[in-house]
Amino acid sequence: MNYKMILAYDGARYDGWQKQGNTQRTIQGKLEAVLSRLAGCPVEVNGAGRTDAGVHARGQAASVRMKTDRSCCEIQEYLNRYLPEDITVLSVEQAPERFHARLNAAGKRYRYQLAFGGRKPVFDRKYLYRVEEPLDFQAMRQAAGYLAGSHDFRSFCSLRRMKKSTVRTLFGIEILEDREQERADLIFEGNGFLYHMVRILTGTLLEVGSGKRRPEDMEKILEAGNREAAGFTAPPQGLFLEHVWYSEEER
Amino acid sequence: MNYKMILAYDGARYDGWQKQGNTQRTIQGKLEAVLSRLAGCPVEVNGAGRTDAGVHARGQAASVRMKTDRSCCEIQEYLNRYLPEDITVLSVEQAPERFHARLNAAGKRYRYQLAFGGRKPVFDRKYLYRVEEPLDFQAMRQAAGYLAGSHDFRSFCSLRRMKKSTVRTLFGIEILEDREQERADLIFEGNGFLYHMVRILTGTLLEVGSGKRRPEDMEKILEAGNREAAGFTAPPQGLFLEHVWYSEEER
Repeated sequence: MNYKMILAYDGARYDGWQKQGNTQRTIQGKLEAVLSRLAGCPVEVNGAGRTDAGVHARGQAASVRMKTDRSCCEIQEYLNRYLPEDITVLSVEQAPERFHARLNAAGKRYRYQLAFGGRKPVFDRKYLYRVEEPLDFQAMRQAAGYLAGSHDFRSFCSLRRMKKSTVRTLFGIEILEDREQERADLIFEGNGFLYHMVRILTGTLLEVGSGKRRPEDMEKILEAGNREAAGFTAPPQGLFLEHVWYSEEER
Repeated sequence: MNYKMILAYDGARYDGWQKQGNTQRTIQGKLEAVLSRLAGCPVEVNGAGRTDAGVHARGQAASVRMKTDRSCCEIQEYLNRYLPEDITVLSVEQAPERFHARLNAAGKRYRYQLAFGGRKPVFDRKYLYRVEEPLDFQAMRQAAGYLAGSHDFRSFCSLRRMKKSTVRTLFGIEILEDREQERADLIFEGNGFLYHMVRILTGTLLEVGSGKRRPEDMEKILEAGNREAAGFTAPPQGLFLEHVWYSEEER
């Protein structure tokens, strides 16, 4: 049987989603350990987005093939009982036999959370990035306009050598500001994202917001096809994978 | 000059408000260290509520007498720059010479944050207490009705020997439930609170909510004048000091 799960996690304590040498410190590793115990044999979990170390999720999707007599509800309860307190399974449902959470994803939404101004956020300080300089959100929105659409995003990718295509479609970047609370969210929707892409887009937009770059520089950065042309990589703790959809209706 | 400050802090890393042998791990100690540096001589800070180890604040009030040429705004900026990231000063203002944050307080509001049901709160798990059993909020509200008013709250105090009066007035206990989110807040307003009082009131109300006690038992517990008669002490991480007022208008 094939299952689709939706997960939320606080990525602070983990080396990212993807299993590595030490499987204990990845989200995938934690999930596979609990599910393998439930199934009685090793299982493999595929996540829609391979979130980096320190990046969080409110709506990560994952798929897993396994044999079990338990209902979806029982699988969810089992997972939530044995997973650590910073990982939770929001839903489990049966999926078509060929469903693969990463390969079938039609799009993803990421949110990058910022705090600006003099206010010190005390209770969610681990879930945002604090910007000291004042930000010109109008300039950032203008820059975002250049980035939306289908482009070769090689300049916004940390991997040096990408053999596969680096063309992706950004459906849009929305910038929500709350001047009262001195908070802003950057919301990215796209059909796929390269390694570090959201964090480099965020860092570059922040350099526009603080006046280090002009909105129209985005065109040259895209054309350069070179990581050196873009801005800094914003730190992971402000980033959340919000939603993964598999059809336009789910978006 | 006398100053009044409003503070927010995450109490998780601290041994409570009040300075003890090791001043470095108390909120008062951190504040006094930074303010003494600013003033160039030792200063003493008085907090309205002496929050326990692990208890948080969104609106603690404190007063301090010191000499400085800086404006209130500059004092606030200095504090926020040198205090750790889990303590923030929300405002600084000049106060009348005789103002004392604890002795002059007319009332305080505390909030106790609960999560119930199967949901695992991932991002604010350190700021609430998770209750496994289903809760009867109607019974809890009924019990709260017996507790409101002026009573000897000795049964709800962890200190064995209280020479001073243990009579306090609870203006009310409000219970806000959000069934959708599986969250509830208990809000306590009163003219003063004994040591551990809010946490023991919360623990006792939770025992009513889970059916271990009846609402009308509250009368006997109050009459007993004995800590053993009341319920358990709810853990500190769900508790926030929300607001301190000095006149009815400020409430």
